[in-house]
Amino acid sequence: MSFQPPRRVLMGPGPSDVSERVLSALARPTIGHLDPAFVGFMDELKDLLRFAFATKNELTFPVSGPGTAGMETCIMNLVEPGDEVVVAVNGVFGGRLSEMTERVGGKAIRVTEAWGRPVDPGKIQNALKQHPAARLVAFVHGETSTGAKSDALELVKIIHEHGALALVDCVTTLGGCPLEIDAWQIDAAYSGSQKCLSAPPGLSPVTFGPNAIKRIEARRTPVPSWFLDLRLVMAYWGGAKRTYHHTAPINALYGLHEALLILKEEGREQSWDRHQRHHLALAKGLETLGLSLFVEDSARLPQLNAVSVPPGVDEALVRKRLLDEHGLEIGAGLGELAGRIWRVGLMGHSARVENVVNFLDSLGKVLGKATEPASEAARKVLS
Amino acid sequence: MSFQPPRRVLMGPGPSDVSERVLSALARPTIGHLDPAFVGFMDELKDLLRFAFATKNELTFPVSGPGTAGMETCIMNLVEPGDEVVVAVNGVFGGRLSEMTERVGGKAIRVTEAWGRPVDPGKIQNALKQHPAARLVAFVHGETSTGAKSDALELVKIIHEHGALALVDCVTTLGGCPLEIDAWQIDAAYSGSQKCLSAPPGLSPVTFGPNAIKRIEARRTPVPSWFLDLRLVMAYWGGAKRTYHHTAPINALYGLHEALLILKEEGREQSWDRHQRHHLALAKGLETLGLSLFVEDSARLPQLNAVSVPPGVDEALVRKRLLDEHGLEIGAGLGELAGRIWRVGLMGHSARVENVVNFLDSLGKVLGKATEPASEAARKVLS
Repeated sequence: MSFQPPRRVLMGPGPSDVSERVLSALARPTIGHLDPAFVGFMDELKDLLRFAFATKNELTFPVSGPGTAGMETCIMNLVEPGDEVVVAVNGVFGGRLSEMTERVGGKAIRVTEAWGRPVDPGKIQNALKQHPAARLVAFVHGETSTGAKSDALELVKIIHEHGALALVDCVTTLGGCPLEIDAWQIDAAYSGSQKCLSAPPGLSPVTFGPNAIKRIEARRTPVPSWFLDLRLVMAYWGGAKRTYHHTAPINALYGLHEALLILKEEGREQSWDRHQRHHLALAKGLETLGLSLFVEDSARLPQLNAVSVPPGVDEALVRKRLLDEHGLEIGAGLGELAGRIWRVGLMGHSARVENVVNFLDSLGKVLGKATEPASEAARKVLS
Repeated sequence: MSFQPPRRVLMGPGPSDVSERVLSALARPTIGHLDPAFVGFMDELKDLLRFAFATKNELTFPVSGPGTAGMETCIMNLVEPGDEVVVAVNGVFGGRLSEMTERVGGKAIRVTEAWGRPVDPGKIQNALKQHPAARLVAFVHGETSTGAKSDALELVKIIHEHGALALVDCVTTLGGCPLEIDAWQIDAAYSGSQKCLSAPPGLSPVTFGPNAIKRIEARRTPVPSWFLDLRLVMAYWGGAKRTYHHTAPINALYGLHEALLILKEEGREQSWDRHQRHHLALAKGLETLGLSLFVEDSARLPQLNAVSVPPGVDEALVRKRLLDEHGLEIGAGLGELAGRIWRVGLMGHSARVENVVNFLDSLGKVLGKATEPASEAARKVLS
């Protein structure tokens, strides 16, 4: 029988709600990946990605796989066996970067931080002093597992002072908070389609600056993956002649293109502002409900709010009731934060006043609290 | 501006035409990859894939990437550094298998065959005699680059007599001609969503039998890719507890599910028959137009017809005119067959009488021939 998904409001760590406009773009007729009409479409899509990333980088395109494939594209192409790589680990995704580094024969120098805290620039500096041969530093801009945002601009400065390249995970931050690839001189970055861009999951925008490209061109060893080898992929996505590498996911790309158009129509800064305002409203409402955010004020990701589970509350039951009774999806804690936090996303199309109010009402009801003061407080912030 | 794709009839080497029913499935609301409703959907999808592959293999699921990602999933998980792997190369995709093998440190023993010819079982037997340590043989069931089908049943028998495992590329064959994973004892196989299943490109169904799983479980080295590591992926796709690995491409999976339902409603054997009948009709019509197929009769893939370009004909101009004047996409030759063949697909939803007739009419016009006798001849085969 055909699958009819239940109606949900997606306020977890992603996927976020996909608008009708993007959904209907997905359903446009499939055309060939070498069709001349598709070649023009690809150029537009790359331009829109450059807008989202705030970059002029020529090598900017969506990897044909989820964010994890984008992450691995970066690691596989930028790391060679024996390379020392400083990896900041303050959550699940920093850990994943470190594991990918080791799998391709790199030596991961892990700079750890308590989960929920931003990456400490001083510790990165120390690691680079102790490991002067390190040629790459990888860190996560917004840790989706904890809701903590790190100071990417400051970190990149330190990394460059030590002559290393900066690889930045922007999966959750792209489109949802300030991020400027060129102004901040980020050398390489990857993101995902299903967070603040609000396209369906399955694509991973990536961008590479001139120094990252030089590094890739100077490789002494082949990239272990044929699928993710940038030199091969770019024969299709770049240049004048589109040489077949793999068959591009046509309809998914229609969706991403439409989602990026929506971002461009709204404006990059306007979208950042919208996320921030709805975050502040949500935070106010949560406070009114007697709940607190897990991450300190200065490092909070507006688009992903880690809420501390109050003592004595069955966190899984709360999530189940929100889903079953209110059609509302929020996320559980991952790894060492399992059972300790809820992750409440306000990403892209999900960052709307009706979602903030609806969530506060629903959560209040499930927790057996008076709901009006909370939604009132949230509305006031947004008015 | 929103992208509005031109109307095309897709009769190239894939993607094939996607039906309205599958397109509309893509546009259903996105839900979370850990939603309980999605978990049930995943089980159904795996069952439908088992039906398509004719297998009971538990480890059967769609890789979150195009066919190339499925190919690499198989090679990366089944090959370890130093392993000898016999790879049959009779077209582009056999060559790709060989290259992937080398990239992960395997030693590819290439058994070559002229493009357009099926893999020679005798040569595979000789290679296995000369390389008794070879633990895996990889070959392409239907070479999309040439239109040649190899005798998979015969090849697997020989491979097993020598104690090796058989990895089979079924990208173009799944759903379009006889293929039975269990009855033929194929150990591992991968396919693509965009050929005879007629879903959009971007997903790669894979299946692994018990001996392939034993091989993977006995690995001494980690899989170089974290994204494609089956032991990690299966924590999400298999077992009772769906542990997050990467965010599944929700909407693309809706489309694949719907496409597989359509295959199940028609019947596996009925679909194979339909492809064969339309192929025979096309072949008859081409013959009437004075054209000939590149592959010998006994090895022709019904779903992908390599047509020899007649002397003196500008093959690229013919394709351009078919596209511009008739909205009809066919494929060019790849590699050493560039300029020598056209590749005419009759895959999945594209394998319909109106497409056969329309193509013969359009091609006849472009070549300046009388078109009625050809479409008449084709219709007669199908009546």
